Amino acid sequence: MSNLAVLTSGGDAPGMNAAVRAVVRKALSEGLEVFGVQRGYAGVIDGDFIKLNSSSVSDVIGQGGTFLRSARCDEFRTPAGRKKAAEKLRSKGIENLVVIGGDGSFTGAKLLSEETGINTIGVPATIDNDIACTHDSIGYDTALNTIIDAISKIRDTASSHERAFVIETMGRHAGFLALAAGLAGGAESILVPERKTDVDEVCQTIQKDYEEGKIHSIILVAEGVELEGQRFETNREMNESPAFALSKEISDRTEFEARVTILGHIQRGGAPTGRDRLLASRLGAAAVDRLLAGESNVMVGLVNSQVQASPIKDAIEQEKELDMDLYELSTILS
Amino acid sequence: MSNLAVLTSGGDAPGMNAAVRAVVRKALSEGLEVFGVQRGYAGVIDGDFIKLNSSSVSDVIGQGGTFLRSARCDEFRTPAGRKKAAEKLRSKGIENLVVIGGDGSFTGAKLLSEETGINTIGVPATIDNDIACTHDSIGYDTALNTIIDAISKIRDTASSHERAFVIETMGRHAGFLALAAGLAGGAESILVPERKTDVDEVCQTIQKDYEEGKIHSIILVAEGVELEGQRFETNREMNESPAFALSKEISDRTEFEARVTILGHIQRGGAPTGRDRLLASRLGAAAVDRLLAGESNVMVGLVNSQVQASPIKDAIEQEKELDMDLYELSTILS
Amino acid sequence: MSNLAVLTSGGDAPGMNAAVRAVVRKALSEGLEVFGVQRGYAGVIDGDFIKLNSSSVSDVIGQGGTFLRSARCDEFRTPAGRKKAAEKLRSKGIENLVVIGGDGSFTGAKLLSEETGINTIGVPATIDNDIACTHDSIGYDTALNTIIDAISKIRDTASSHERAFVIETMGRHAGFLALAAGLAGGAESILVPERKTDVDEVCQTIQKDYEEGKIHSIILVAEGVELEGQRFETNREMNESPAFALSKEISDRTEFEARVTILGHIQRGGAPTGRDRLLASRLGAAAVDRLLAGESNVMVGLVNSQVQASPIKDAIEQEKELDMDLYELSTILS
Amino acid sequence: MSNLAVLTSGGDAPGMNAAVRAVVRKALSEGLEVFGVQRGYAGVIDGDFIKLNSSSVSDVIGQGGTFLRSARCDEFRTPAGRKKAAEKLRSKGIENLVVIGGDGSFTGAKLLSEETGINTIGVPATIDNDIACTHDSIGYDTALNTIIDAISKIRDTASSHERAFVIETMGRHAGFLALAAGLAGGAESILVPERKTDVDEVCQTIQKDYEEGKIHSIILVAEGVELEGQRFETNREMNESPAFALSKEISDRTEFEARVTILGHIQRGGAPTGRDRLLASRLGAAAVDRLLAGESNVMVGLVNSQVQASPIKDAIEQEKELDMDLYELSTILS
Repeated sequence: MSNLAVLTSGGDAPGMNAAVRAVVRKALSEGLEVFGVQRGYAGVIDGDFIKLNSSSVSDVIGQGGTFLRSARCDEFRTPAGRKKAAEKLRSKGIENLVVIGGDGSFTGAKLLSEETGINTIGVPATIDNDIACTHDSIGYDTALNTIIDAISKIRDTASSHERAFVIETMGRHAGFLALAAGLAGGAESILVPERKTDVDEVCQTIQKDYEEGKIHSIILVAEGVELEGQRFETNREMNESPAFALSKEISDRTEFEARVTILGHIQRGGAPTGRDRLLASRLGAAAVDRLLAGESNVMVGLVNSQVQASPIKDAIEQEKELDMDLYELSTILS
Repeated sequence: MSNLAVLTSGGDAPGMNAAVRAVVRKALSEGLEVFGVQRGYAGVIDGDFIKLNSSSVSDVIGQGGTFLRSARCDEFRTPAGRKKAAEKLRSKGIENLVVIGGDGSFTGAKLLSEETGINTIGVPATIDNDIACTHDSIGYDTALNTIIDAISKIRDTASSHERAFVIETMGRHAGFLALAAGLAGGAESILVPERKTDVDEVCQTIQKDYEEGKIHSIILVAEGVELEGQRFETNREMNESPAFALSKEISDRTEFEARVTILGHIQRGGAPTGRDRLLASRLGAAAVDRLLAGESNVMVGLVNSQVQASPIKDAIEQEKELDMDLYELSTILS
Repeated sequence: MSNLAVLTSGGDAPGMNAAVRAVVRKALSEGLEVFGVQRGYAGVIDGDFIKLNSSSVSDVIGQGGTFLRSARCDEFRTPAGRKKAAEKLRSKGIENLVVIGGDGSFTGAKLLSEETGINTIGVPATIDNDIACTHDSIGYDTALNTIIDAISKIRDTASSHERAFVIETMGRHAGFLALAAGLAGGAESILVPERKTDVDEVCQTIQKDYEEGKIHSIILVAEGVELEGQRFETNREMNESPAFALSKEISDRTEFEARVTILGHIQRGGAPTGRDRLLASRLGAAAVDRLLAGESNVMVGLVNSQVQASPIKDAIEQEKELDMDLYELSTILS
Repeated sequence: MSNLAVLTSGGDAPGMNAAVRAVVRKALSEGLEVFGVQRGYAGVIDGDFIKLNSSSVSDVIGQGGTFLRSARCDEFRTPAGRKKAAEKLRSKGIENLVVIGGDGSFTGAKLLSEETGINTIGVPATIDNDIACTHDSIGYDTALNTIIDAISKIRDTASSHERAFVIETMGRHAGFLALAAGLAGGAESILVPERKTDVDEVCQTIQKDYEEGKIHSIILVAEGVELEGQRFETNREMNESPAFALSKEISDRTEFEARVTILGHIQRGGAPTGRDRLLASRLGAAAVDRLLAGESNVMVGLVNSQVQASPIKDAIEQEKELDMDLYELSTILS
């Protein structure tokens, strides 16, 4: 083994640059040549490889986003696309590829490995933290702190005007971010996709808080939440976002006037936290180690505070379960 | 003069607490008794006065929001409501009132002074910075930095995915925040209510940037912007927010894929910046000075870096003009 | 069991308030009465107990420091002092005490339990993270991010002037903070108490970096580091801080001009991060659970991402080892 | 006029990059060629000129430090050095130079203009804000907020342990930073070089606060402060820093135990605030305008909120006075 390539794919996450840096410098220290691929799998198919040296990754450890960029690539979803990708890699003499991304990116890495024999290693990076076989994914800790900072700002104005605020976080299928941010931010209610939400119950809790003298109510809602509740279903169709729908119900059914904040893409940006930089550094270096050990089609993750490799298949197929103890704790402490 | 009351009114702004602190401690140092009014003019009508001492305002200088709270009050908009308010103040022996807020709050202060003889002093606090007779209003500097921080986070993800982002700031009638934040944040385009926006022109600029190799485009839009342009008008009615409308046009008419972020109420919160604390401290103390000098129906502001009092009438009626030189500068530097 | 008391002791750490909040609200939800003790063990001896309810801990989850305050207490180090403390607790009918602090505080909790039969539970909180039987202690994550932020600021000026900067972190006996912050901050060298430091070697590395074109050098030094190296020992006695001593050597023996920054107490303050709030919430609630389960003289900690109780004795006596793999990683990635 | 060169000199300040960006893009928009000089005047003498285009300054508006770097240059302090500098500039056909820096840098710019006829324009950038003929200098606002953030962190730990903290800020000859940060940070005492400090009086105030129940005391001290007071002078010689000297006195003479924090170089770094970016953008563009208008040996500054040019001579020789009203205000509000 004399070289490897590295790419970032899917939604960007803070710490991706730190992971690329770790892959590059670890590989160089092992005497390997390193190529950066621009724009994810699209760049592989286009043969868009850049040789990277140590100074290529100077000062990127603290930068959000990914300097290698990311993009969707429909062509790579086809066997023909993956065949072409492997050919492009091999035309440069590259047999090893580190893929930094989430579920979708790992499916591609798995198929590429199985169909073409290119060695692939996955490094989990997504703010949603919904990847199995690792306790944390890169970017999650930074997004968590970004949301907490937003909650803190909104609480200022919520208290001043004695209002309820519905804050919508990212998370189409997973509530890790909403739950952790809600618990850490002291939110009065937290709604996650993993748990059915009864709008009646939420409104009753908020009204009870009002009657007991709370001067604000913060409700964290993951974007993928499905709302239910008798009086609610009738006007659901008029609203696309659960946050707006819930806000209307709260204004109608409690004495709080409710407002909505959709946090959106600010959750993806920002300088990575210490945790995300450490995680990215460890996993990036471990990916190189796994390739040197002759492995492929595996993902490196953090399990019981130790770096551990698992089959990519498991990372994709196993469901990562939300810790419902944390959910219970949030209802006790709020 | 032996006492005064102080209230915060209208939308909350970072630094309101620092202004209350300055009013309280300056008044105490002059031997006056100080009453805090809860929930703005509603609290005056309800006679909701709390005696404040020096430790009532300990550690509030750095807190966002307003611990005196704020609220709308329809009753105070009527002469009868204001008469009642004056009676409640006088029943406590209070003849002097400091009003910390924006345009709407000042209209109330002016009428209260003129109709009932209560001495009122306005202290300008609104993140919009749209109040005349002062260069800055309390809260503007903090909001400016909050928006810049958000732009910086969004730029990370915009560059990673080579996207355009339309970021909507507060500002229904004024573009001060959007212009300053856009210029300081290095936005590619800035849309303000004070200047007619040609959607064709905006899209052409963005497309030109794309062709010249820019890998992202950040467009700052004040919420009060009105869009126009030939191809645009036909579907305007389907969109309520100018940001969403503009985003659709950009995605349709340029090679950038566009996304929207509505910053919303995070712009109102957060620990006040140094500038906002200094401004609030100076204006709060000056309000007490003006009352002691026997003035009423005036607003204290910062003019040419000096504290200066102006008739509230002027602050309300004069239009504060956006500095179009800054606008021109933004087009040169982006 | 009908009640418990809670105190914070030793050096303050961000997240202590979040831990107190969790203890209080969890205990209330279990029907217990809760007393807060002011100023650590001194307050126990003085009988300084305040009844706490749910609103006593409103809005404290995001506040640095400890609203219960902390203090040294020489009297409690004596058997007589601890006897008096137990008497004071029992005079209020209190048999259960949650102690939030570090090593020294836990020694007191252990002796109090063994000598007087008061049930004690330790909750680990110290930015140094040097407590065994838990992967993280409360406050460590926040301090880590504070240091990284400082490194980032200093790198700006270091690069501008092509200088070396020696940054001294807290850590008299342990290098956890310095190592993690140095790795995450991209420091060129990291000096920790756990590993003997050869000043010659450090200077050679820095000079080599200079010759290879690095325009700055950041050296992280834990305050407890002992320096050695032939040319260095002669003038060691003149310097109290390892940072100043090392800085002089670097200026003398490399082409970089060196400067020193002692981060000091800013490392203890600030709003706790998401991680610290979550950890504090979990451990605080777990402390109440352990008391309800009839346990005493144990510490709750996070082991393999799960809450786990260990004898306080183990937490005090076992040495928590620095992960030397991380140290090796730092030399590869810098 | 067909081109210009730009350099940064002296201590770095946040916003220097934003100023360079404004000079570059404004000049390009006027059809001029732009050269960046590396490492201040040393780079001029070495002929170290790099042609800059619009993308040379992409994404630098938010970066601390200066990408053009800065350095001391003894040779430029001699007439021979300046003659050589002018020759190097003219050998490239450059007759115009924008100098971004402080007092020392402006002295060089003035002499260069007078002795060699090179047109020079000064842009004030120093966190100390001690330059006359401008209300603010670039970097001051960012440093102010950095110090306030540090005060806030230290207050957490000061309150927890009921301590006094002496915080030393930059400012060898000027107290602008210490005064503004102290006032905005709610410091109990502020010591500035412009005002003689009586240590007896400071200690008495602190002791009085203690007796009135304050649980902490924050004392801001500019590094250039000279202490006096009868009991103090005897041991002055043992201490180099006024902060350590004062801390010892406070511990000896009040019931507070005192600690010291020297903020040091973190005050120079960090992403510039909105104000600093706007100021830098306006002044950088104005510098190009002044050159195009045929001016030389002037500094552009902000006077009464408007950009204004003044002779460099005035900027250097006039003393910028500290606003003692702010000082008085700080004693009333603390």
